[in-house]
Amino acid sequence: MSDMFRYVPIPFERVSIQDPFWSERQRVNHELSLVKQYAMCESTGRFDALKLQWKPGQPNQPHIFWDSDTAKWLEAACYACQIREDSALRAKIDRVARLFIGAQQPDGYLNSYFTTVEPQRRWKNLRFNHELYCAGHLFEAAVAHHTLTGEPELLAAAERYADYIGSVFGPCESQLQGYCGHEEIELALVKLAQATGTARHLALAAYFVEQRGKAPCYFDQERRDLPPDQLPLDANNAYFQAHQPVREQKEAVGHAVRAVYLYCAMADLAREKDDAGLLAASEALWKDVTEGKLYLTGGIGSYWEREAFSAPYFLPNDRAYCETCASVGLIFWAHRLLQHEAARSYAEVIERALYNGALSGMSLDGKSFFYQNPLASTGEHHREEWFQCSCCPSNLSRLLGTLGSYIYSQGAETLLVHLYIGSEARFQLASGVRGSLRQSGDTPWGEQARFTLALEQEGEMELGFRIPSWAKAFHLRVNGQPLEATPTDGGYARVRRIWKTGDTVEVHLPLHTLRLASNPRVIANSGQVALQRGPFVYCIEDADFDASVLEVSLPREAEITAHFDPALLGGVTVLQGRALRTAPQSGLYYETDAAQESTPFRAIPYFAWDNRAPGAMRVWIPQG
Amino acid sequence: MSDMFRYVPIPFERVSIQDPFWSERQRVNHELSLVKQYAMCESTGRFDALKLQWKPGQPNQPHIFWDSDTAKWLEAACYACQIREDSALRAKIDRVARLFIGAQQPDGYLNSYFTTVEPQRRWKNLRFNHELYCAGHLFEAAVAHHTLTGEPELLAAAERYADYIGSVFGPCESQLQGYCGHEEIELALVKLAQATGTARHLALAAYFVEQRGKAPCYFDQERRDLPPDQLPLDANNAYFQAHQPVREQKEAVGHAVRAVYLYCAMADLAREKDDAGLLAASEALWKDVTEGKLYLTGGIGSYWEREAFSAPYFLPNDRAYCETCASVGLIFWAHRLLQHEAARSYAEVIERALYNGALSGMSLDGKSFFYQNPLASTGEHHREEWFQCSCCPSNLSRLLGTLGSYIYSQGAETLLVHLYIGSEARFQLASGVRGSLRQSGDTPWGEQARFTLALEQEGEMELGFRIPSWAKAFHLRVNGQPLEATPTDGGYARVRRIWKTGDTVEVHLPLHTLRLASNPRVIANSGQVALQRGPFVYCIEDADFDASVLEVSLPREAEITAHFDPALLGGVTVLQGRALRTAPQSGLYYETDAAQESTPFRAIPYFAWDNRAPGAMRVWIPQG
Repeated sequence: MSDMFRYVPIPFERVSIQDPFWSERQRVNHELSLVKQYAMCESTGRFDALKLQWKPGQPNQPHIFWDSDTAKWLEAACYACQIREDSALRAKIDRVARLFIGAQQPDGYLNSYFTTVEPQRRWKNLRFNHELYCAGHLFEAAVAHHTLTGEPELLAAAERYADYIGSVFGPCESQLQGYCGHEEIELALVKLAQATGTARHLALAAYFVEQRGKAPCYFDQERRDLPPDQLPLDANNAYFQAHQPVREQKEAVGHAVRAVYLYCAMADLAREKDDAGLLAASEALWKDVTEGKLYLTGGIGSYWEREAFSAPYFLPNDRAYCETCASVGLIFWAHRLLQHEAARSYAEVIERALYNGALSGMSLDGKSFFYQNPLASTGEHHREEWFQCSCCPSNLSRLLGTLGSYIYSQGAETLLVHLYIGSEARFQLASGVRGSLRQSGDTPWGEQARFTLALEQEGEMELGFRIPSWAKAFHLRVNGQPLEATPTDGGYARVRRIWKTGDTVEVHLPLHTLRLASNPRVIANSGQVALQRGPFVYCIEDADFDASVLEVSLPREAEITAHFDPALLGGVTVLQGRALRTAPQSGLYYETDAAQESTPFRAIPYFAWDNRAPGAMRVWIPQG
Repeated sequence: MSDMFRYVPIPFERVSIQDPFWSERQRVNHELSLVKQYAMCESTGRFDALKLQWKPGQPNQPHIFWDSDTAKWLEAACYACQIREDSALRAKIDRVARLFIGAQQPDGYLNSYFTTVEPQRRWKNLRFNHELYCAGHLFEAAVAHHTLTGEPELLAAAERYADYIGSVFGPCESQLQGYCGHEEIELALVKLAQATGTARHLALAAYFVEQRGKAPCYFDQERRDLPPDQLPLDANNAYFQAHQPVREQKEAVGHAVRAVYLYCAMADLAREKDDAGLLAASEALWKDVTEGKLYLTGGIGSYWEREAFSAPYFLPNDRAYCETCASVGLIFWAHRLLQHEAARSYAEVIERALYNGALSGMSLDGKSFFYQNPLASTGEHHREEWFQCSCCPSNLSRLLGTLGSYIYSQGAETLLVHLYIGSEARFQLASGVRGSLRQSGDTPWGEQARFTLALEQEGEMELGFRIPSWAKAFHLRVNGQPLEATPTDGGYARVRRIWKTGDTVEVHLPLHTLRLASNPRVIANSGQVALQRGPFVYCIEDADFDASVLEVSLPREAEITAHFDPALLGGVTVLQGRALRTAPQSGLYYETDAAQESTPFRAIPYFAWDNRAPGAMRVWIPQG
């Protein structure tokens, strides 16, 4: 472990989840989403594409994204089987792994589209063709597959492909000094290096990261033979985060998913290479995102048409892009930085995105998906079964499969609890203390989390519990005894003592319904309020109102009560009260009619919207 | 006149303006803006470019936009001299006209950039290179120059160029079946045809309009040799309004200035060719724009990064693009449709854009300009002296020079008053009635407009006065006698009688400060109110507040008084009262603190913002 990174996550393989909320989400992912995604990959020809038999004129022409969809399904399915063995799923995993292995070319290349459809265009359009991106997802899948099965073939194929890529790209004159328009391979190569211990994969990741944005920009060279298109949008390649060397980047720009995948790799390399400069750059970008470019739901990317970051504080609620993958990527990034510093802000962004803007990407039945997760809709935005570019469903499945990895970190003598999710984690500290920590309770709808230790032998260590900023107070009891005035450090309440089997810590986090406002520079939220309770951001949707939620305002003095409804949306706490409704008039603009009528009000957690009758929705509500 | 178009504008050459508000705007345009713009064209090398002596390696390399800037300056200067002779300006006009004439090539081609910088790329990139766009602006300038001077040379050069273009573009196999990526030449060719009586210019305009969007799309053919860039933005060429034949277009899409210039040409051709289908298409697009894509200020184009239309009702206030040129083009378009039908909605969009989102494009001193006219700013948006692509300043100057053309229309027996601007119009109706109509009064800050007729001999005609929808009532007096219950037709109060010299009509339009709301689908304006008084939309800016206007809300019950301040911003009516301020807290999101304090409130007309200390501004204000 580098000196700069004091913690490592306890990986999901050592954390079993038993939680009133998340167990069901994992079950749906395993039994329904992954099955659905497999069927969609099959029916659209994505698996067949890997047989490399497609010929011009045939249906289901492979697409440049397809191998990434297939690889991500494979990766996510491996995680699901890791959690719970499933012979049917295992058979599918075996089949897909064999398809990938069989599609590898003698030189190591492995891409169905550029092998069958445009073989002459291999590596010709790095900006847009996602070739290295697809390779990255294959590497991640191969690592997951090897972890699950222990079989060496797919991992070996991934390494051969990585070595081939390493022969094509690099600083020598005979090599291409390029990198992918869509970052992903960088973090994947770090994973591959960690899984195999092969240093050259790490070196290739570092090459791709450091080469990015160096002048003259490779992407300018790549398109130098094209007539100048004067679309100003990526004139400086900022869309691809290639406008300047990554160490000099201070502002998050361009395509949001691309960006956060890069920032992940920067944090990874900072850790692997003990590189304070890369860490500082990743942290500066974190500051930029969280201070002015982050939606309340944990969504990022306010620029709909480009799936991209826009100007600071420009956070329109309708047509907020907030791609599901971008929130998932944000979680990946926050999780990496959290290992550097147990600062609540990282864990809270994970929580914010996880319970809201990422989770909203999947329907309650696991069968349909949001690509965009706006914070307001006039009624036309709905989940779909599948997409031409279907990156989001499998990304959510990857996240749900590895959810256990996000709950705990361990340091030399420390165990940190980041998320209040019922689970049991097995750990072994450098200090020698080993055992398990079981978390139970009634979160997220309730206020109690109870931790029980089982240790091989008693020993000293520090337990740190994140005190969420949504909790206005907290109460800790150790073995039933209250701990008064527990100090917090970076938002974590820490208890250091000699622990033994059977010791318990109870963490009480009182829930309040928070009325939130925005920084005044967020013009889109002027005069509006959002409701949050615990980790959940709330919204109102037409299904709960007689009139349109677009006509509703919430007076400052309105009393809001919280009530758990087990029959609603799989069981959620709803917020209820009375609001005001102003009837609209005709036209785009009109003189206001002051008449407002009282109307019942009910808000539901944002993640659960669009699971009933379609209609309008909003998170930010005018204050009446 | 076609049967479908019942009216023609009384052109500005026959309308002299004497108005407490607009005369000063015209003076500033003439004496300061045009002088400033000329100096900028000179210092940046735009005039020198027309000498065709630029060589690679020299400074001031010509740019593809430059000829349009120069031509638009020339056109605007001709209008100014038409209003008031000015020998110094006339000398500049002569020089620039000679530069254009001297730059014409033997084959008729006339473009400084593609003659000196990229001669091999003539007509190679119609999508982005603005070649035909620049030609169009030259044609408009040539017509204005001929009207002013009577000299034939520049108009002849324009016709030669048009004929050359007509030889290059057309349906024959030897011709290019293309059209410009930025519409403009279409409406310019109609003007050229009207000025010269040359039918083939009209035919070429019709060719460009009808060819647009026909499958296979020329732009796809043009880029067929390029590798596929997967930028989804103009995959179907909607950015250029070339996604389908124009007669089938029902939704305003793509670049807003491009779009409205096309829609102008569609209305022009409908009129010239008595073509109900083109008129219907232009009207359908009008409906689409005004029902869901129009800002309160008369701005269009909510998609900042592309200067383009976005989805219906998506009208964010910060980063509203609202290019000055787009509001000017919207006025052009509305003015054309208004001649078809004296419907208040057309004239009101002219008024809305003219007094607000277009006029804001120029500082009070005429020396600096907005390219974008957002409805809210966090404080960073300010006028600039000039732009690399400096289309907006001269477009405003063209509009101010021709302002007289927008006030009146005449039909066979009808004279219509669209705008309340002090002026005198000379007219001659088809019925034989001829004379002048003088408009005086205290608009726009006051409520009275007085019209006095001078006729060569008495005669019957109808006078129609637009009753603005912002006036909750109106009172007409003819020769001092009230006309009770005057009927309105399409928003125009009409008085038909036998008129004689000295007859007067007084129109009283009571002013109220209107509190406006938006259609609830405009999420950006939820719970917010805007103030309008007469034609002016108001805003609040930091210069008038102790705290930031971003922290201010206006209670529903707040009393607002209006007060004319002759010393402020050249003399404006301000709106005053008391509002509430909520102090912000730190961070992007935080729990609301209900504490609000009372604060003095002052709103100024939107057009006049950013003429004092820089700061934040907003049109839509949260209701307290």
